Amino acid sequence: MSIPGQLNPPARLLLGPGPSDAHPRVLGAMTTPLLGHLDPFFLELMQETQQLLRDALLTKNPLTFPVSATGMAGMETCVVNLIEPGDKMVICYAGYFSHRMIDVAGRCGAQVTILEQKWGQVFDLNVIRETLKTVRPKALGIVHAETSTGALQPIAELGKLCHEYDCLLIVDAVTSFACTPLKVDEWELDAVFSCSQKGLGCPPGMSPVTFGPRAEAVMSSRKTKVQSWYFDLTMIRTYWTSGDRAYHHTAPISMVYALREGLRIVMEEGLENRWARHLRNHLALKAGLTALGLKYSAQEGHQLPQLNAVYIPEGVDDLTIRKKLLTEFGIEIGGGLGDFKGKVWRIGLMGYNSKPSSVFMVLAALEKSLKEVGVNIIPGSGVAAAELAYSAK
Amino acid sequence: MSIPGQLNPPARLLLGPGPSDAHPRVLGAMTTPLLGHLDPFFLELMQETQQLLRDALLTKNPLTFPVSATGMAGMETCVVNLIEPGDKMVICYAGYFSHRMIDVAGRCGAQVTILEQKWGQVFDLNVIRETLKTVRPKALGIVHAETSTGALQPIAELGKLCHEYDCLLIVDAVTSFACTPLKVDEWELDAVFSCSQKGLGCPPGMSPVTFGPRAEAVMSSRKTKVQSWYFDLTMIRTYWTSGDRAYHHTAPISMVYALREGLRIVMEEGLENRWARHLRNHLALKAGLTALGLKYSAQEGHQLPQLNAVYIPEGVDDLTIRKKLLTEFGIEIGGGLGDFKGKVWRIGLMGYNSKPSSVFMVLAALEKSLKEVGVNIIPGSGVAAAELAYSAK
Repeated sequence: MSIPGQLNPPARLLLGPGPSDAHPRVLGAMTTPLLGHLDPFFLELMQETQQLLRDALLTKNPLTFPVSATGMAGMETCVVNLIEPGDKMVICYAGYFSHRMIDVAGRCGAQVTILEQKWGQVFDLNVIRETLKTVRPKALGIVHAETSTGALQPIAELGKLCHEYDCLLIVDAVTSFACTPLKVDEWELDAVFSCSQKGLGCPPGMSPVTFGPRAEAVMSSRKTKVQSWYFDLTMIRTYWTSGDRAYHHTAPISMVYALREGLRIVMEEGLENRWARHLRNHLALKAGLTALGLKYSAQEGHQLPQLNAVYIPEGVDDLTIRKKLLTEFGIEIGGGLGDFKGKVWRIGLMGYNSKPSSVFMVLAALEKSLKEVGVNIIPGSGVAAAELAYSAK
Repeated sequence: MSIPGQLNPPARLLLGPGPSDAHPRVLGAMTTPLLGHLDPFFLELMQETQQLLRDALLTKNPLTFPVSATGMAGMETCVVNLIEPGDKMVICYAGYFSHRMIDVAGRCGAQVTILEQKWGQVFDLNVIRETLKTVRPKALGIVHAETSTGALQPIAELGKLCHEYDCLLIVDAVTSFACTPLKVDEWELDAVFSCSQKGLGCPPGMSPVTFGPRAEAVMSSRKTKVQSWYFDLTMIRTYWTSGDRAYHHTAPISMVYALREGLRIVMEEGLENRWARHLRNHLALKAGLTALGLKYSAQEGHQLPQLNAVYIPEGVDDLTIRKKLLTEFGIEIGGGLGDFKGKVWRIGLMGYNSKPSSVFMVLAALEKSLKEVGVNIIPGSGVAAAELAYSAK
């Protein structure tokens, strides 16, 4: 058995659906020597991290903390804690990640009603209202920013609507958090989960979650034990939010360091500035991609600034281009998932990577690569269009 | 909302039950810029990490990889994938962590038979044999190194015994891996889970697991869906072990970097050397603690080198001493859990921290602290006894 050599990966610019590059300050924070997970100083860091999360999520929810696993674990945490066998749940399905929520809910014994929409399109609140009226579910699950299609679901009024029908709203904010507006309290979102490796500019490995008062009430009146031990909030909350800080599992100390640093950077920039930056770089990228002849897969007016999903041009091979970008330029973009496999590219401008240099680099590299497989493009047109977009006021 | 300051924790020597200090090379590896979780280079790193894990666990099991969460997630992964509702499971209970396994199994709908032993004592194989004969369970769960009591369960012959009765053996190796012998194939262990933050000298956040052929057969003949989506191996294995590397969740890239580096260090030292080092430092610490008048809570002959659990002397307050160690010396040791709360201290010498400097430092600090609360100790007796133990051949 031979021992592999020193870690020495090639340089990458991660412009896929995530992980996005971590901020250098975040990587630096992870070299900090460990603390014990019950050390008084670590408990302070936990409180600071929770407060930073509340500030960044625009919520006062006491039960706000990062789950010790990746974003999908946040989805499972929300569902297993709020749903009991036999409970009715409506899930708005218009992409790969809402499909996953259907699977997760089914494993909890939920009676799932699927409200379907074409991939890339958003849901009409009136249609949702009709479904709530008919089904009368305990919870409705929706993906705020659907990473598989690049569509941003308008949810500002959805919480109020759900509450008219005494229904909880569970929101997948994996790709929206710290990129586009996400106002947990104002929008009356009952349970929200996200990730660390996109808008927050941290490595993957943590899933921030927040639960509002309605969700708390539902959890406290459960009749059955939560089926997952690892994600059982009745126990985890005693570690994160109670005075006695009872041990549940060993918190991933370095990842908490990273998350805290990522959140500090978010709050130093300010949420409004951060959202505006994501939008500005998106508009430049969109101008450039459009000049290259590429079309967005998400509905016009509902396209994610942080995740630009575009159809692959007729006759162009998905992998050929992505391989060129990766090997010749060190740029990673994402391929399609599920129904969109081989049909779309997903170009992320998330967190630390939402910046003009990313925009110009991917446009130039994409232009060169497309030309090399025979696509007819006016030289420099992508970059020129982006430049113009940046100079527009 | 004010933004907390730069991360600046006090220096600690982590001699509790874990996390133990991470090796500086491991912390350094985490500053490496991220790769995408489907990047060809990252897939190579995954394969290398898996092979390192197999080498360190002394197994050829193809299904060997780290679960993307902490050690308790490894326990849940083993149980939810191998147990279906109504299955019989025997759990050997003699400490805090075996109690947790009972809870996890119950949530999966297992019919659990508890085989009980006094905390700190180990199980007699003949008693286990009788239970297997009577109950005929699908699986038996046991904790190899019980962190709450400091007892090392002899399991070298247990796999063969279980297999006589067509029963799977599930082993909690959270505290044993990379500290004391753990021979997965030779001992016929069917499912084993561990953690990153103890013997491996990495931060907490990953849970290495391995599944042998019998466990694989049981999983492939399941009748029901695994109740946890996040821990469902039928999906996770396609990411870690199949040719198509299908996306399941975003792997915690930096933690995989850390784990790979920790494992490289383990294999550079060599397993036999590492086990011998843990034993040598344990014997010195034990000599010192004994000279200070402290007694081990685990059965003589079955004490963990990596986790020295000793009774708190009559009349001495647990927290007073631990607080002194932490604030005056920056040393963390562990308190008791469950039945042992307030009754034992747990002194870890794990991975990177199993070294003479840890032994001398904790003995000197403990002596001074105990004296200050009135315990009568001959000056320097702890350190002197350790010195003598080191010089014995």
